Amino acid sequence: MTACMASGPAFGDWMAQVQASMEESLSSLLPEAAGAPLRLRQAMRYAVLDGGKRVRPLLVFAAGELFEAAPAALAHCAAAVEMIHAYSLVHDDMPCMDDDALRRSKPTVHRQYDEATALLAGDALQAQAFQVLAAADVADPARQLAMLRLLAQAAGANGMCGGQAIDLESVGLSLSLAQLEQMHRLKTGALLRASVLLGAWCGNAWPAAGMEADTAALNAYADAIGLAFQVVDDVLDATADAATLGKTAGKDAADNKPTYVSILGLEQSSALAEKLREDAYQALAHFDGKARHLRALADLIVQRKA
Amino acid sequence: MTACMASGPAFGDWMAQVQASMEESLSSLLPEAAGAPLRLRQAMRYAVLDGGKRVRPLLVFAAGELFEAAPAALAHCAAAVEMIHAYSLVHDDMPCMDDDALRRSKPTVHRQYDEATALLAGDALQAQAFQVLAAADVADPARQLAMLRLLAQAAGANGMCGGQAIDLESVGLSLSLAQLEQMHRLKTGALLRASVLLGAWCGNAWPAAGMEADTAALNAYADAIGLAFQVVDDVLDATADAATLGKTAGKDAADNKPTYVSILGLEQSSALAEKLREDAYQALAHFDGKARHLRALADLIVQRKA
Repeated sequence: MTACMASGPAFGDWMAQVQASMEESLSSLLPEAAGAPLRLRQAMRYAVLDGGKRVRPLLVFAAGELFEAAPAALAHCAAAVEMIHAYSLVHDDMPCMDDDALRRSKPTVHRQYDEATALLAGDALQAQAFQVLAAADVADPARQLAMLRLLAQAAGANGMCGGQAIDLESVGLSLSLAQLEQMHRLKTGALLRASVLLGAWCGNAWPAAGMEADTAALNAYADAIGLAFQVVDDVLDATADAATLGKTAGKDAADNKPTYVSILGLEQSSALAEKLREDAYQALAHFDGKARHLRALADLIVQRKA
Repeated sequence: MTACMASGPAFGDWMAQVQASMEESLSSLLPEAAGAPLRLRQAMRYAVLDGGKRVRPLLVFAAGELFEAAPAALAHCAAAVEMIHAYSLVHDDMPCMDDDALRRSKPTVHRQYDEATALLAGDALQAQAFQVLAAADVADPARQLAMLRLLAQAAGANGMCGGQAIDLESVGLSLSLAQLEQMHRLKTGALLRASVLLGAWCGNAWPAAGMEADTAALNAYADAIGLAFQVVDDVLDATADAATLGKTAGKDAADNKPTYVSILGLEQSSALAEKLREDAYQALAHFDGKARHLRALADLIVQRKA
């Protein structure tokens, strides 16, 4: 992958190792494949396992390691965020939303199972996410409660669900760049930001303990990569094919959705992604070169091809 | 209402007071009606406010008051449970599930708004429930984490969602009484049990503090009223009309779903509900007459007409 090369083989190894360990953590933190209700359990595991780049878990671990967080606690945080992300994809793919047939090169959950099972599997995954985070071994229970509030806020009406609702309302409308940005800050940005902060708070970066400057730098980083993620998504949707993306391409234009590409054009959208990467780098300068995995993840997000 | 009369005017007053204060708590703990995304916020409030008997909040308060819990913490617990319950109704009513047009005598959320908004409003309500519980002012943060795990477990694959999945799988099958019971223990019982325990744990009934016997008695009570609730639901579905129920009547038979009435018949089902009320009374005997609101709620559940 280009991004791994750009960031050196050490990052590629680290990434592969986190991805592999996440697969194990997710598998053990999901309901087992056997037992009743079988179809629901299988659909939950189908939705989460064996797929995805695990960008959010990578952010949790990269931020957590910067602040010496315990790996077991990070695994719980990362699994919780990934379960929220996975449930949102399951519901987003349903006929009443985007009506998508492909996800990660596999049939979407409602195609593989049925709509009712997809609805319930998404619902159960959200509950599982909070259960996993509430069961994490975080040293300070009060801090863990703040982490739960952070995840819930990022997932709910003032975060991901809110962004999706604005997305729905904006079909066929011409949004300003500021409105588009606000939508994506909620829809994608909130959960990416939560990933970074959950990792950091798992370690010793706690605002209440006088580490406000660290949290501010992480927030600026998360803002930049959150927007970059969506700009690149829009560029890929307009340029890549389904085989590369692992999902239906050209959906946004076909659905008449406002995107960065439809507002700025391809060239300026790519330039914006580059500028946001620079912003992310600048935010990380606060950490004196110690945040190399977070830096490499900004590269990964901007340079990805799918 | 018969139940209020049976339990005396004092209980009726208490119930009305809890219901009124819940309406205020829920209103203030939901996203405001103004602001973006407007349609999502309105759908969330429509789904939760101005309706329902608030059985789960009543259980939270009745159990909490028995153990001298602070009212503000109880209000958060009760709102969290009610939001989980409300989201489950929104999703359950959707076309891919029960496809219901009426709920609490109003159009269901997907009829009043649209399917995508109903899906997102349910999702956002679940996140809001965990946010509200994580923000409750419970004296001991470690205990609060256990309460979050309890609610998440009651809501997820090993609780409510799991019960709904078994319900789906069992359409057209003939279940044994034991299988039917297991389905309802998850589908309805888990959240009713969580209501009782959240209230009690908010107060001084904490198993780890040597109060295992209290928790055991509350568990036995919750088991009994959880099943009674469903038995009565099945009886009402078979006997009442839509105007009284506030939702479509006779759905279960039309959908070919196994129910207590289809397995036991009407008379034996009513007798079972009475026996379960006796079981609930017996469990409460542990509290030496101090659990009168929990006792009256068992009456309410068995004697309700809708």
